[in-house]
Amino acid sequence: MKPKLLEIRQGVLSKNDRLAQELRARFAAAGVFVINLVSSPGSGKTTLLEITLSQLRARGHAAAALVGDLATENDARRLARSGAPIRQIVTDGICHLEAAMVASHLEGWDLTALDFLFVENVGNLVCPASYDLGESMRVVLLAVTEGEDKPLKYPTMFHSADLVLLTKMDLAQATEFDREQAYAAIHAVSPGVPVVETAAKKGRIDGWLAILEERAGVKATPVPGD
Amino acid sequence: MKPKLLEIRQGVLSKNDRLAQELRARFAAAGVFVINLVSSPGSGKTTLLEITLSQLRARGHAAAALVGDLATENDARRLARSGAPIRQIVTDGICHLEAAMVASHLEGWDLTALDFLFVENVGNLVCPASYDLGESMRVVLLAVTEGEDKPLKYPTMFHSADLVLLTKMDLAQATEFDREQAYAAIHAVSPGVPVVETAAKKGRIDGWLAILEERAGVKATPVPGD
Repeated sequence: MKPKLLEIRQGVLSKNDRLAQELRARFAAAGVFVINLVSSPGSGKTTLLEITLSQLRARGHAAAALVGDLATENDARRLARSGAPIRQIVTDGICHLEAAMVASHLEGWDLTALDFLFVENVGNLVCPASYDLGESMRVVLLAVTEGEDKPLKYPTMFHSADLVLLTKMDLAQATEFDREQAYAAIHAVSPGVPVVETAAKKGRIDGWLAILEERAGVKATPVPGD
Repeated sequence: MKPKLLEIRQGVLSKNDRLAQELRARFAAAGVFVINLVSSPGSGKTTLLEITLSQLRARGHAAAALVGDLATENDARRLARSGAPIRQIVTDGICHLEAAMVASHLEGWDLTALDFLFVENVGNLVCPASYDLGESMRVVLLAVTEGEDKPLKYPTMFHSADLVLLTKMDLAQATEFDREQAYAAIHAVSPGVPVVETAAKKGRIDGWLAILEERAGVKATPVPGD
């Protein structure tokens, strides 16, 4: 990488950081807890989000989501079935979301009416690591199908995680997943980071929902008949 | 993205293209067939490469590999067990390999002695798409565990593929993989691109080996007792 490119890139990053701080203040004032979901392509972000949105709704919480992709609006269509407000951010080839993209897609939404706002980043274990989106919590997903060594190979991303979700746990046996080795790799790059295991396709996300409610400081008030 | 950043990035790219053309001429003169392997993190590039190197050796071919990662030399150590010459390229946070990195890691290697040179790119479905490495063939891996929609969501990468490998086919049933939907997505962004199915962990890579030998114009001459 050339020094000049690096210098300009740092300028873009610090502009992003300033904007992310403004977003963070805005989210705090509105009382909305914001989650930035990052992972490789295919780690199960959208499947997790789909069930999370409907479960949160059933527990009496208001949630919305922004979903980032290089191309297609498929995820937004898929998530809209949950009944939650959803907007798609198409990055048109850019490998990460930026604070400005989040800000421009919030227009017209009443943030004070929300308990949770999820931001599903572009599937990429490198680029999104450097871009603060003003989130309250950054969550990195690692599917058991990807191999236990990924945290060691993508340390910046895992180091920046506030929480790691081990996803697709229902495939652990079929993939000969080594749980101990995965935890060791995660904690080697991010000592003490909490790890929660999920199997969203099988509906097993209880630990994740509990952490969301605890961190956001909200309690479940189940909606009758939902 | 700012116009100035874009302009400088284009400069870096065209410098890369020139260097890639030089590499391509050098590979052709040496008679070595070069494969650029790209995919998401965890699609099985290293596992495929491990068995490919030993199978090619058993079929009488000389092969070597360069392996790119943001951090760690684990893959080089793992692949060295195949007996093939291996070098690790640590990109130190950069999300793709560049032609200059390939060139600088070839020093001292006699390319004329090789039939195949594999370049395992950084696990990333976005950044490596724009960087020509002088390869003879670009191969994009898609694991059945990642979901059938990935070609639609990462069209630039799949569009640039000379060949798509569907990997981890042994997990197709456990993941409820929809073969027809996956082929439709691949061919929507890259009409007519050949697709080969593999299960490297189970030793099923015959179609892949046949394509390598056909494209490189070499024939198997099994090594007795290997």
